[in-house]
Amino acid sequence: MSSAVRIAVIGAGSAQFSVGLVRDLCLAKSLAGSSIAFMDTDVDRLAMIHALAARYVTELGTELRFEQFTDRVEALDGADVVVNTALAGGHQREEDERALLDRLGYYRGLHPAEGFYHQYHLMRAIAQDIARVCPDAWLIQSSNPVFDGCTLMTRETGVKMVGLCHGPFGGIREITTILGFDPDRVSFEAPGVNHCVWMTGFRYEGRDAFPPIDRWIEEESAAYWKRADTHYSHTQLSPAAVHMYRFYGTMPLGDTSRVIWPEAWWYHQGLAGKQRWWGETGGFDSEIGWGQYLKRVEETVRRISAAATNPEARLTEIFPPTPSGEQIVPIIDALFNDRQGRFIVNVPNRGAITGIAEDVVVEVPALVDGGGIRPIIVGPLPDKVMLGAVAPQVLAMERRVAAFRFGDPSLIMQVVLSEQRTRS
Amino acid sequence: MSSAVRIAVIGAGSAQFSVGLVRDLCLAKSLAGSSIAFMDTDVDRLAMIHALAARYVTELGTELRFEQFTDRVEALDGADVVVNTALAGGHQREEDERALLDRLGYYRGLHPAEGFYHQYHLMRAIAQDIARVCPDAWLIQSSNPVFDGCTLMTRETGVKMVGLCHGPFGGIREITTILGFDPDRVSFEAPGVNHCVWMTGFRYEGRDAFPPIDRWIEEESAAYWKRADTHYSHTQLSPAAVHMYRFYGTMPLGDTSRVIWPEAWWYHQGLAGKQRWWGETGGFDSEIGWGQYLKRVEETVRRISAAATNPEARLTEIFPPTPSGEQIVPIIDALFNDRQGRFIVNVPNRGAITGIAEDVVVEVPALVDGGGIRPIIVGPLPDKVMLGAVAPQVLAMERRVAAFRFGDPSLIMQVVLSEQRTRS
Repeated sequence: MSSAVRIAVIGAGSAQFSVGLVRDLCLAKSLAGSSIAFMDTDVDRLAMIHALAARYVTELGTELRFEQFTDRVEALDGADVVVNTALAGGHQREEDERALLDRLGYYRGLHPAEGFYHQYHLMRAIAQDIARVCPDAWLIQSSNPVFDGCTLMTRETGVKMVGLCHGPFGGIREITTILGFDPDRVSFEAPGVNHCVWMTGFRYEGRDAFPPIDRWIEEESAAYWKRADTHYSHTQLSPAAVHMYRFYGTMPLGDTSRVIWPEAWWYHQGLAGKQRWWGETGGFDSEIGWGQYLKRVEETVRRISAAATNPEARLTEIFPPTPSGEQIVPIIDALFNDRQGRFIVNVPNRGAITGIAEDVVVEVPALVDGGGIRPIIVGPLPDKVMLGAVAPQVLAMERRVAAFRFGDPSLIMQVVLSEQRTRS
Repeated sequence: MSSAVRIAVIGAGSAQFSVGLVRDLCLAKSLAGSSIAFMDTDVDRLAMIHALAARYVTELGTELRFEQFTDRVEALDGADVVVNTALAGGHQREEDERALLDRLGYYRGLHPAEGFYHQYHLMRAIAQDIARVCPDAWLIQSSNPVFDGCTLMTRETGVKMVGLCHGPFGGIREITTILGFDPDRVSFEAPGVNHCVWMTGFRYEGRDAFPPIDRWIEEESAAYWKRADTHYSHTQLSPAAVHMYRFYGTMPLGDTSRVIWPEAWWYHQGLAGKQRWWGETGGFDSEIGWGQYLKRVEETVRRISAAATNPEARLTEIFPPTPSGEQIVPIIDALFNDRQGRFIVNVPNRGAITGIAEDVVVEVPALVDGGGIRPIIVGPLPDKVMLGAVAPQVLAMERRVAAFRFGDPSLIMQVVLSEQRTRS
């Protein structure tokens, strides 16, 4: 089966994201003939993305069409799929807020609640537009906060929606590399809520693969942690993650170990504290790690801009046409060409995980095909994970979302007051 | 209708409790002919209670019979109702634990998690005995922790169970007195979980009575708080309770304002902090307030002992036969004589409060009659109360109960680590 779809990309000015999407789309033969409506408020970046995309498909001879819009409603018109990757205010607003909180004594901010308001507002507005303009379209929510935003949109609109995150795959890739496994023979389950997922299953060639992790921890972790090249993004088997694995009895996957700050404050006490648990960079969220990350993003943007301004450059050499590993295009293919696959999705719980409300968005495995996105019943999570990590995350999310929905700042005060670092 | 019932009282050595129960039972004409099986491990106190009870009914000419047991199973044999007021280890164990925690930097302990283990163990053992010896009996759980214990017993046994607390009535009595209301014309609702209940309704002579509270706060609270005679047990309209009323948008009732420590740590920072929020005694839980309370308990015990050792004393003069205001005997009367009444009970949620699991015990209004105890559907609690107070209490309870059921101390570590005062 082969269907052409129309995809609206909101926040398409994110060069890295849009180039990756175009590349994946070029590789999906069954989506030939599809069109992308790039939408962004930044006209210059939008034009650059549009030109790059057009050059890329010309080089490959793929049959894809592109349009550009600064008006959201126009971009949505006729869309079968809406990919939302927009970040309200961009990274700079995040940086400004974090600097303010740092001055107030909240080292590295009030992760992950900060800046939620603008982003919620934008997400809801987009979902409302979809409900009005293209009510049958699937919304693929790609920008954060996926957990908060998707729950909010579930409650306020009826759009068909799925949130996606590459965290679990990145985590598994890291573990696989460290253990020397062939990535194609690994399978895993890691249910929970976005950025708080836990490995309830991990198999290599069909056999339980936790024993090899335990052996690595016992025999090789100390040497690995001493290696000078420990990178800011090496979080999966960091001392913090391994300590959590022991404390919670289950391995945190992807961003989990670093993102559950308020519940696991003891890994984040100042830079020295972070360095103890995350290696010499202090991990992704320290001033060092985050600085390295921003630099890398800048470099990618520079590389893309350079390619854009050099009409001689062969884009397919700079960005070779290999799959990105992102789930977006494969999910579109599964939905519109009935190409059944198992994905990791963020969708309303509706009983998938025991003890979480029906309308809270959870991250669970799902079968996706022409019939839609059908999450697998997970059942109860391990007690220590549920009570120690997931339930507190749900509670904090509920406070933030209620504060936004009902315009009540005292609910945000509750978030701040329940922070272990709040003193007065 | 009039039925004689057999009531087993576990932990009957608590003189104040047992004398109160006998007095209320004497006043319930429709329970004439009933018998009480007093059970305690302290033989001397048991004998004293037994003798006092016998003298009391002789003076009044009531038809009640008493037996005493040191063996729990024998006491349960043939019981229609089991009242459990037992406190494992008594007040002294609590004091020892609190002193230890004080030395570790937890001013006034880790309220209310401390000492849970022995008490859970005892509660579960009693419920298991009931399931075996008198499976049709109603268990009335009177000693704390009602919230944790009743939830635990719900999950581990199938006994018919209700937890009772006088906190809400004491709170309403205090408000009523302060406002100069006639207590007989007041009605209220305060659902939640035990020791965390919030006034979602308050009426005087059928009219909304929150405006008079607001007026009192505006015009009279300052003078009231300055009065020198502010007593340790005046918590209902303390500065802390009034501040919570504003912050949560709903008035905490009874023990609520003082018991939700971990969620509202800012009211409990050292004695000086407590005095700011609870008056010059620092409230019920400060070293001053708690000392006064223990003294009062001692005095009552002394008064009862003096009466017990003086055969000339007229007990009905020392303890006049007026209703105690406790719900125990009226509920027994309602259940066994189909005397319908509205009570405040702690029973498994089963959908009464939205967003709380079915098998968590909640404190809700209920109709009680020959058909049993039927809670009223409450629906959702106000957001700020649910997200700011009730849900965190449920989470902390779940951690304590799971730690006990699965014998896993790392769950208790989660409770301690989530305490705002934990530093390392």
